[in-house]
Amino acid sequence: MRAEIISIGTEILLGHIVNTNTAYLSKKMALLGIDVYRHTTVGDNPMRIVSLLKEALSRSDIVFTTGGLGPTVDDITLNAIGSALSRSLVFNKGIEKSIAKHFRKRGLKKAPKDAVKQAYIPRGARWFENKVGTAPAVLVEYGKKLIVALPGPPRELIPLCEKNIIPYLKRKGLAGNWTIKTKAIKTVGLVEAEVNRAVKDLLSMGPETTVGIYAHLGEVDLKITSKAKSEKSANRDIKKVEKTIRKRLGKYIYGTDTETLEYALGTMLEKKKKTLAIAESCTGGLIANRITNISGSSKYFKMGVVAYSNKSKINLLGVSDAKIKKSGAVSGGVALDMAKGIKNLSKSDIAIGITGIAGPKGKAKKKPIGLVYIALISDKVKVVKEYRFKGTREEIKLQSSIAALDLARQHGSK
Amino acid sequence: MRAEIISIGTEILLGHIVNTNTAYLSKKMALLGIDVYRHTTVGDNPMRIVSLLKEALSRSDIVFTTGGLGPTVDDITLNAIGSALSRSLVFNKGIEKSIAKHFRKRGLKKAPKDAVKQAYIPRGARWFENKVGTAPAVLVEYGKKLIVALPGPPRELIPLCEKNIIPYLKRKGLAGNWTIKTKAIKTVGLVEAEVNRAVKDLLSMGPETTVGIYAHLGEVDLKITSKAKSEKSANRDIKKVEKTIRKRLGKYIYGTDTETLEYALGTMLEKKKKTLAIAESCTGGLIANRITNISGSSKYFKMGVVAYSNKSKINLLGVSDAKIKKSGAVSGGVALDMAKGIKNLSKSDIAIGITGIAGPKGKAKKKPIGLVYIALISDKVKVVKEYRFKGTREEIKLQSSIAALDLARQHGSK
Repeated sequence: MRAEIISIGTEILLGHIVNTNTAYLSKKMALLGIDVYRHTTVGDNPMRIVSLLKEALSRSDIVFTTGGLGPTVDDITLNAIGSALSRSLVFNKGIEKSIAKHFRKRGLKKAPKDAVKQAYIPRGARWFENKVGTAPAVLVEYGKKLIVALPGPPRELIPLCEKNIIPYLKRKGLAGNWTIKTKAIKTVGLVEAEVNRAVKDLLSMGPETTVGIYAHLGEVDLKITSKAKSEKSANRDIKKVEKTIRKRLGKYIYGTDTETLEYALGTMLEKKKKTLAIAESCTGGLIANRITNISGSSKYFKMGVVAYSNKSKINLLGVSDAKIKKSGAVSGGVALDMAKGIKNLSKSDIAIGITGIAGPKGKAKKKPIGLVYIALISDKVKVVKEYRFKGTREEIKLQSSIAALDLARQHGSK
Repeated sequence: MRAEIISIGTEILLGHIVNTNTAYLSKKMALLGIDVYRHTTVGDNPMRIVSLLKEALSRSDIVFTTGGLGPTVDDITLNAIGSALSRSLVFNKGIEKSIAKHFRKRGLKKAPKDAVKQAYIPRGARWFENKVGTAPAVLVEYGKKLIVALPGPPRELIPLCEKNIIPYLKRKGLAGNWTIKTKAIKTVGLVEAEVNRAVKDLLSMGPETTVGIYAHLGEVDLKITSKAKSEKSANRDIKKVEKTIRKRLGKYIYGTDTETLEYALGTMLEKKKKTLAIAESCTGGLIANRITNISGSSKYFKMGVVAYSNKSKINLLGVSDAKIKKSGAVSGGVALDMAKGIKNLSKSDIAIGITGIAGPKGKAKKKPIGLVYIALISDKVKVVKEYRFKGTREEIKLQSSIAALDLARQHGSK
């Protein structure tokens, strides 16, 4: 089975929209064992859409279109499909009802006049109700080929795919006899070259199971991809490689797929029944914000203080004035005092203090932008670490937050 | 002038990457008055790339390719271009030198063996040095047509476009005799329908100048787009419409284009020489984080406290225990006490207290998820507001932060 995806909309060709639908659809097709051959974007121009549809039907078994199903004059996808297949558009009472229902739910007695246009679909087509918007998904069979017309907004397209289109393709036996699965193994604390060295032999495996390295700011992911006859055998292949990776990178791995560092930290704290508090300077609340993005964090997160000024460090956290005068506010001693101060205030098990220069201004004598000190204290551990980060203000804040969360994850569990 | 963009890479067809290059390139072409006709994505398959290149050259004057310029066996864009134009690839000493320089800078004495592949470009091609990676931009003229091959990573593609490709197209007179400019007017405090009502007549203007409404979570943007003969006249058209919009939406407008709410707030505070402090509960540090994303915020941001637990609200901020017992921690009275507490601690001119239920757990009797109270006090103002937000935990945090920053922007300046 070969598919292609046609995105319709002048706003995409003008660069006003980043097209995320194609990536979503492509990923889903790979999981179904359907080979995606091409992505194309075309403007709201009838002739160009018709000629592209014909071109695509000559190459592929399934042609997805996204966009152009709305009620305005620019929305011409179904007309173009009708024209490409020489089929007239016919009025569908079921769609009219579903549109009327949509507007009733939103407190309008009658659907706006324009909306009725959306009830016209190519003769012989089937449709699935859009529970978020008014444009239904429309499926047109043409000999052994299939056109699937989907609305453009992702919040409408995605539920239609999950609930209707993917099950339909499976039901009709259009899914392939292979599947592609991926799993991301997420590491922190190593740079890309170090991860590369550790797994170098795995990078040239294949072709059925492959490993790729994806470096982000402050983190490195390993992505295992397996193409297999069944989901089960893909999972088995992935598990095998994952085991090897875990053996080599052990403590640097904090999670998989969509798991975040703050999630890993929260899980550990909940399990160990430990509480945490944090005193931030250069990160300005970012670390507390990340920690509290996790639902249930109130169980282990006791308190955060953003002590931006020297005065607040001294008055609120009890940082020693003399230390600031001697070594400056950006120093290991001050980070440690901040951690001690917040531990006193909050009575937490673990406390972190962080101070640094996020830039782009504020370079002090001998202290470069990106210099950051993080201190962690608990009943068992006392650590102070120095970091030198590079990047913009927000990048330095982000890297600092990663380092602090990782420090808490590693030492907090001791 | 008509252009099209070919994105090359199996990883895009598999949905592993969201393609942002096409939106970037399209926007730049619109500014240059070059009409973008099509976007296509194709996998790392020589025959498919060659046939697509020929197809594109038959339609368009300028064909951009992105991706496939790396050193690995999968990187075949230049081979495909050579094959499509019947030109052999020739070794280029200048590129070899630039690659060697790249690796020297990174502490390697010699470029890896693979890298030399990147020094082969189609006969007669011109190239521009990539200062971030090793793959140069390669330009091939073919009769009156032009192929521009760009590396795939945006952090390499964007600087090459800004510094080399766009100036080159201008120099060669390939830019069109029109330009498209856009300006976003950013509002906060109104819902989409209200903004719609205020500017309804402007939405059907056109075709040269158009206005669109784009609603985000908690904010609504108005985007003015003008297509004109020159940048100057586009700017003039935009200015005229902007004036009308400002007259109607006045105080709800906080900025334009890339300006953020925290930037608008910071600018106001700096101008009025006022300082700010904030006590957060449900937002967990998000507001402090946003405020401190602005460079120079240390001048006006005095202190932040994340008081997640009742104990920290009572002990650190002096919130009345009786009030919590009577009305609960999520109440207007507690928000006000939090604002008073942080004002006392920080001696700031303006202080904000915020308490609420971010969910998804934590619904209390009669208090739904999304219920948020924000209090602001200054020497002149005392406000307590109740909000009812909907959405996920992070969406409720985000909407709360927008409301708080807007409150500070509006009342803080009094």
